Amino acid sequence: MFTYSTGVSLDGFVADAHGSLDWLFAADHDPEGPGGFAAFDATIGAMVMGRTTYDFVEHALAESGEPWPHRQPTWVLTHREPPAVPLGDGITFTDAPIPEVAAAMRAAAGDLDCWIVGGGQVATAFAEAGLLDEVIVAIAPVVLGAGTPVITTRLDLELVAVERNRDLAVLRYRVVRPA
Amino acid sequence: MFTYSTGVSLDGFVADAHGSLDWLFAADHDPEGPGGFAAFDATIGAMVMGRTTYDFVEHALAESGEPWPHRQPTWVLTHREPPAVPLGDGITFTDAPIPEVAAAMRAAAGDLDCWIVGGGQVATAFAEAGLLDEVIVAIAPVVLGAGTPVITTRLDLELVAVERNRDLAVLRYRVVRPA
Repeated sequence: MFTYSTGVSLDGFVADAHGSLDWLFAADHDPEGPGGFAAFDATIGAMVMGRTTYDFVEHALAESGEPWPHRQPTWVLTHREPPAVPLGDGITFTDAPIPEVAAAMRAAAGDLDCWIVGGGQVATAFAEAGLLDEVIVAIAPVVLGAGTPVITTRLDLELVAVERNRDLAVLRYRVVRPA
Repeated sequence: MFTYSTGVSLDGFVADAHGSLDWLFAADHDPEGPGGFAAFDATIGAMVMGRTTYDFVEHALAESGEPWPHRQPTWVLTHREPPAVPLGDGITFTDAPIPEVAAAMRAAAGDLDCWIVGGGQVATAFAEAGLLDEVIVAIAPVVLGAGTPVITTRLDLELVAVERNRDLAVLRYRVVRPA
């Protein structure tokens, strides 16, 4: 199963107009709490993200001095040259078609699920390929007014769960596929 | 108190790219249930909406043959000519400045609250005038990908309540004013 799980503003942006996530990091939450990252992470066997997201993480880790925090094999979708030194082991930079990447991820994940980290372009590409099964949004208490959209294609959903984790409202949806 | 209460898509649109609310009306909910309209309506003593919203309601009532469903005095913000026959009694068409409209609404509402029905432009105007106290969104299970934004200015919020009403996630926020 492919799950797009991301933080969003109340108006559906995953980054503000300057590409910043300060508004998301400012939201208090308990990673061990309802809809938190700890339980989610345990279900994930492979990850995929776009190059903008990867570069954002690279910049953040350079600033904090922390290591790459993920144990899962990770695919980074990019048409650009891979970095000379990747952030961690098991990171594959690729411009392969989505179905091909998805197949490799499924094989790597085994019985676990696959996490579409973002951003919106990658999630939209998986959705348009019919490969998005679930959407989880952790809604931060802010309206940004502008930014990077969470998804840019129409998607019918079924509400599965509604939870609160301190400042965050965490909503989980199943993607409804055309019959 | 001025409350902007509206239906939204998961990506923060109050109408789709064609101005339609079909996606919202398709969402199952119980008006008497958690975060439902019945309890909210009882707290409201005055309403304000933009002309696009008013025209939408006029069109919908013409199609359904139903009467204007609101008992509260209502202000419609417009620079255009008022309609020859308003939908109901107690509807004021005005191009007065927001603070002036707000004062008239407060006087009419007495101990009750004021409902900013929408759309996004009206809510943004109230927010920018420092006259928005609360935001309530009923999130329908759909990503639209494009449409009319819920608000187009930055707004810091505090999460007050998270509820589920069948297909809808209903989130209530207090607007955090700059100190």
